[in-house]
Amino acid sequence: MGADVGDPRSDRTTLRRIAGVIALADGRAEEYLRLHREVWPEVLAALSRANITNYSIYRHDGVLFSYLEHRGDDYEADMASLAEDPATQRWWEVMTPMQRTLRATPDDPWWTELEEVFHLD
Amino acid sequence: MGADVGDPRSDRTTLRRIAGVIALADGRAEEYLRLHREVWPEVLAALSRANITNYSIYRHDGVLFSYLEHRGDDYEADMASLAEDPATQRWWEVMTPMQRTLRATPDDPWWTELEEVFHLD
Repeated sequence: MGADVGDPRSDRTTLRRIAGVIALADGRAEEYLRLHREVWPEVLAALSRANITNYSIYRHDGVLFSYLEHRGDDYEADMASLAEDPATQRWWEVMTPMQRTLRATPDDPWWTELEEVFHLD
Repeated sequence: MGADVGDPRSDRTTLRRIAGVIALADGRAEEYLRLHREVWPEVLAALSRANITNYSIYRHDGVLFSYLEHRGDDYEADMASLAEDPATQRWWEVMTPMQRTLRATPDDPWWTELEEVFHLD
Protein backbone atom coordinates (compact mmCIF):
# COMPACT_ATOMS: atom_id res chain seq x y z
CA MET A 1 0.00 0.00 0.00
CA GLY A 2 1.15 3.55 -0.64
CA ALA A 3 1.79 6.11 2.10
CA ASP A 4 -1.33 7.36 3.78
CA VAL A 5 -1.93 10.98 4.72
CA GLY A 6 -2.70 10.64 8.41
CA ASP A 7 -1.37 8.00 10.77
CA PRO A 8 0.60 5.57 8.60
CA ARG A 9 -0.40 2.68 10.85
CA SER A 10 -4.13 3.32 11.10
CA ASP A 11 -5.09 1.76 7.81
CA ARG A 12 -3.35 -1.47 8.71
CA THR A 13 -5.08 -1.94 12.05
CA THR A 14 -6.82 -5.28 12.13
CA LEU A 15 -8.85 -7.16 14.69
CA ARG A 16 -7.63 -10.59 15.69
CA ARG A 17 -9.57 -12.75 18.11
CA ILE A 18 -7.56 -15.28 20.11
CA ALA A 19 -8.86 -18.02 22.36
CA GLY A 20 -6.76 -20.37 24.44
CA VAL A 21 -6.98 -23.12 26.99
CA ILE A 22 -4.75 -24.23 29.86
CA ALA A 23 -5.27 -26.35 32.96
CA LEU A 24 -5.04 -25.25 36.58
CA ALA A 25 -2.35 -27.03 38.55
CA ASP A 26 -3.75 -29.27 41.28
CA GLY A 27 -4.62 -27.37 44.42
CA ARG A 28 -3.83 -23.92 43.00
CA ALA A 29 -7.29 -22.82 41.86
CA GLU A 30 -8.08 -20.69 44.89
CA GLU A 31 -4.81 -18.76 44.69
CA TYR A 32 -5.16 -18.30 40.93
CA LEU A 33 -8.67 -16.90 41.29
CA ARG A 34 -7.65 -14.61 44.14
CA LEU A 35 -4.74 -13.13 42.19
CA HIS A 36 -6.95 -12.63 39.14
CA ARG A 37 -9.43 -10.59 41.12
CA GLU A 38 -6.67 -8.01 41.57
CA VAL A 39 -4.22 -8.35 38.71
CA TRP A 40 -1.24 -5.98 39.19
CA PRO A 41 -1.93 -2.62 37.51
CA GLU A 42 1.44 -2.76 35.70
CA VAL A 43 0.40 -6.04 34.11
CA LEU A 44 -2.94 -4.59 32.96
CA ALA A 45 -1.15 -1.53 31.57
CA ALA A 46 1.29 -3.71 29.64
CA LEU A 47 -1.59 -5.67 28.12
CA SER A 48 -3.25 -2.43 27.02
CA ARG A 49 0.02 -1.14 25.56
CA ALA A 50 0.19 -4.39 23.58
CA ASN A 51 -3.21 -3.50 22.07
CA ILE A 52 -5.02 -6.31 23.87
CA THR A 53 -8.67 -5.50 24.56
CA ASN A 54 -11.80 -7.30 25.69
CA TYR A 55 -9.73 -9.93 27.48
CA SER A 56 -11.63 -12.43 29.60
CA ILE A 57 -10.58 -15.62 31.37
CA TYR A 58 -13.18 -18.21 32.29
CA ARG A 59 -12.97 -21.33 34.40
CA HIS A 60 -14.63 -24.71 34.05
CA ASP A 61 -13.50 -26.93 36.92
CA GLY A 62 -9.77 -27.40 36.39
CA VAL A 63 -9.62 -25.77 32.96
CA LEU A 64 -9.11 -22.11 32.11
CA PHE A 65 -10.34 -20.63 28.87
CA SER A 66 -9.17 -17.23 27.60
CA TYR A 67 -10.67 -14.94 24.97
CA LEU A 68 -9.07 -11.70 23.87
CA GLU A 69 -8.99 -9.29 20.99
CA HIS A 70 -5.91 -7.67 19.50
CA ARG A 71 -6.44 -4.46 17.56
CA GLY A 72 -3.24 -3.32 15.97
CA ASP A 73 -1.02 -3.63 12.97
CA ASP A 74 1.62 -6.04 14.31
CA TYR A 75 0.46 -8.77 16.66
CA GLU A 76 3.82 -10.54 16.81
CA ALA A 77 5.69 -7.32 17.67
CA ASP A 78 3.16 -6.50 20.40
CA MET A 79 3.50 -9.99 21.90
CA ALA A 80 7.29 -9.69 21.81
CA SER A 81 7.11 -6.34 23.65
CA LEU A 82 4.77 -7.84 26.21
CA ALA A 83 7.16 -10.72 26.81
CA GLU A 84 9.93 -8.20 27.55
CA ASP A 85 7.90 -6.19 30.05
CA PRO A 86 9.42 -6.71 33.54
CA ALA A 87 6.10 -6.70 35.43
CA THR A 88 4.64 -9.19 32.96
CA GLN A 89 7.67 -11.41 33.38
CA ARG A 90 7.24 -11.36 37.17
CA TRP A 91 3.53 -12.09 36.80
CA TRP A 92 4.23 -15.04 34.52
CA GLU A 93 6.76 -16.37 37.09
CA VAL A 94 3.97 -16.37 39.66
CA MET A 95 1.43 -17.88 37.23
CA THR A 96 3.58 -20.63 35.76
CA PRO A 97 3.46 -23.06 38.71
CA MET A 98 -0.30 -22.53 39.01
CA GLN A 99 -0.94 -23.70 35.47
CA ARG A 100 -0.37 -26.94 33.61
CA THR A 101 0.07 -26.53 29.89
CA LEU A 102 -1.96 -28.72 27.55
CA ARG A 103 0.39 -28.33 24.60
CA ALA A 104 0.84 -31.35 22.39
CA THR A 105 4.49 -30.74 21.51
CA PRO A 106 7.29 -28.83 23.28
CA ASP A 107 7.17 -26.18 20.55
CA ASP A 108 3.53 -25.32 21.18
CA PRO A 109 2.79 -22.19 23.23
CA TRP A 110 2.14 -22.29 26.97
CA TRP A 111 -1.57 -21.60 26.41
CA THR A 112 -2.94 -23.82 23.66
CA GLU A 113 -4.57 -21.68 20.98
CA LEU A 114 -8.00 -22.86 19.92
CA GLU A 115 -9.46 -23.35 16.47
CA GLU A 116 -12.32 -20.97 15.64
CA VAL A 117 -15.16 -22.98 14.16
CA PHE A 118 -17.84 -20.26 14.02
CA HIS A 119 -18.12 -16.50 14.23
CA LEU A 120 -21.02 -14.05 13.99
CA ASP A 121 -20.33 -10.32 14.29
CA MET B 1 -27.99 3.95 16.45
CA GLY B 2 -27.34 6.69 19.06
CA ALA B 3 -29.63 7.09 22.04
CA ASP B 4 -32.99 8.07 20.68
CA VAL B 5 -35.15 10.38 22.72
CA GLY B 6 -38.24 8.40 21.90
CA ASP B 7 -36.76 4.97 22.65
CA PRO B 8 -37.34 4.07 26.29
CA ARG B 9 -35.08 1.01 25.99
CA SER B 10 -31.87 2.67 24.88
CA ASP B 11 -30.76 3.82 28.32
CA ARG B 12 -31.19 0.35 29.79
CA THR B 13 -29.04 -1.44 27.25
CA THR B 14 -26.31 -3.40 28.97
CA LEU B 15 -23.50 -5.63 27.79
CA ARG B 16 -23.40 -9.16 29.09
CA ARG B 17 -20.59 -11.55 28.16
CA ILE B 18 -21.43 -15.25 28.22
CA ALA B 19 -19.05 -18.16 27.83
CA GLY B 20 -20.00 -21.80 27.72
CA VAL B 21 -18.60 -25.25 27.21
CA ILE B 22 -19.99 -28.47 25.76
CA ALA B 23 -18.46 -31.68 24.40
CA LEU B 24 -18.66 -32.99 20.85
CA ALA B 25 -20.36 -36.36 20.57
CA ASP B 26 -18.02 -39.14 19.48
CA GLY B 27 -17.49 -39.22 15.75
CA ARG B 28 -19.55 -36.10 15.02
CA ALA B 29 -16.80 -33.46 14.92
CA GLU B 30 -16.44 -33.34 11.16
CA GLU B 31 -20.16 -32.87 10.58
CA TYR B 32 -20.40 -30.26 13.33
CA LEU B 33 -17.54 -28.24 11.85
CA ARG B 34 -18.95 -28.49 8.33
CA LEU B 35 -22.38 -27.25 9.39
CA HIS B 36 -20.82 -24.38 11.33
CA ARG B 37 -18.95 -23.16 8.28
CA GLU B 38 -22.36 -22.43 6.75
CA VAL B 39 -24.84 -21.85 9.51
CA TRP B 40 -28.36 -21.36 8.12
CA PRO B 41 -29.03 -17.66 7.46
CA GLU B 42 -32.33 -17.84 9.38
CA VAL B 43 -30.42 -19.02 12.45
CA LEU B 44 -27.93 -16.17 12.17
CA ALA B 45 -30.77 -13.69 11.74
CA ALA B 46 -32.53 -15.01 14.83
CA LEU B 47 -29.34 -14.65 16.88
CA SER B 48 -28.99 -11.05 15.72
CA ARG B 49 -32.65 -10.34 16.50
CA ALA B 50 -31.94 -11.68 20.00
CA ASN B 51 -29.21 -9.01 20.34
CA ILE B 52 -26.38 -11.55 20.30
CA THR B 53 -23.16 -10.12 18.88
CA ASN B 54 -19.50 -11.07 18.64
CA TYR B 55 -20.36 -14.75 18.94
CA SER B 56 -17.52 -17.22 18.44
CA ILE B 57 -17.26 -20.97 18.95
CA TYR B 58 -13.85 -22.56 19.41
CA ARG B 59 -12.76 -26.18 19.51
CA HIS B 60 -10.13 -27.95 21.56
CA ASP B 61 -10.12 -31.64 20.63
CA GLY B 62 -13.51 -32.92 21.73
CA VAL B 63 -14.58 -29.79 23.59
CA LEU B 64 -16.38 -26.72 22.24
CA PHE B 65 -16.09 -23.33 23.88
CA SER B 66 -18.46 -20.46 23.10
CA TYR B 67 -18.08 -16.76 23.73
CA LEU B 68 -20.79 -14.23 22.95
CA GLU B 69 -21.99 -10.79 23.91
CA HIS B 70 -25.57 -9.77 24.52
CA ARG B 71 -26.36 -6.07 24.16
CA GLY B 72 -29.89 -5.36 25.14
CA ASP B 73 -32.19 -4.59 28.00
CA ASP B 74 -33.71 -8.03 28.62
CA TYR B 75 -31.47 -11.05 28.16
CA GLU B 76 -34.01 -13.56 29.43
CA ALA B 77 -36.74 -12.27 27.09
CA ASP B 78 -34.36 -12.40 24.12
CA MET B 79 -33.35 -15.98 24.95
CA ALA B 80 -37.01 -16.96 25.28
CA SER B 81 -37.75 -15.46 21.84
CA LEU B 82 -34.78 -17.27 20.37
CA ALA B 83 -35.99 -20.57 21.79
CA GLU B 84 -39.35 -20.02 20.06
CA ASP B 85 -37.85 -19.30 16.65
CA PRO B 86 -38.72 -22.19 14.30
CA ALA B 87 -35.41 -22.17 12.39
CA THR B 88 -33.48 -22.12 15.65
CA GLN B 89 -35.54 -25.03 16.93
CA ARG B 90 -34.75 -27.03 13.79
CA TRP B 91 -31.05 -26.12 14.09
CA TRP B 92 -30.97 -27.26 17.70
CA GLU B 93 -32.61 -30.54 16.68
CA VAL B 94 -29.72 -31.11 14.28
CA MET B 95 -27.10 -30.01 16.82
CA THR B 96 -28.36 -31.94 19.84
CA PRO B 97 -27.11 -35.40 18.83
CA MET B 98 -23.73 -33.93 17.86
CA GLN B 99 -23.13 -32.56 21.33
CA ARG B 100 -22.79 -34.11 24.75
CA THR B 101 -23.75 -31.83 27.60
CA LEU B 102 -21.36 -31.44 30.54
CA ARG B 103 -24.02 -30.24 32.96
CA ALA B 104 -23.66 -31.38 36.53
CA THR B 105 -27.38 -31.63 37.30
CA PRO B 106 -30.45 -32.14 35.08
CA ASP B 107 -31.50 -28.55 35.77
CA ASP B 108 -28.32 -27.06 34.35
CA PRO B 109 -28.46 -25.66 30.82
CA TRP B 110 -27.40 -27.65 27.77
CA TRP B 111 -24.23 -25.58 27.40
CA THR B 112 -22.50 -25.22 30.75
CA GLU B 113 -22.00 -21.54 31.52
CA LEU B 114 -18.50 -20.68 32.67
CA GLU B 115 -17.36 -18.57 35.61
CA GLU B 116 -15.57 -15.39 34.60
CA VAL B 117 -12.40 -15.06 36.64
CA PHE B 118 -10.80 -12.07 34.91
CA HIS B 119 -11.76 -9.29 32.56
CA LEU B 120 -9.89 -6.35 31.02
CA ASP B 121 -11.75 -3.98 28.72
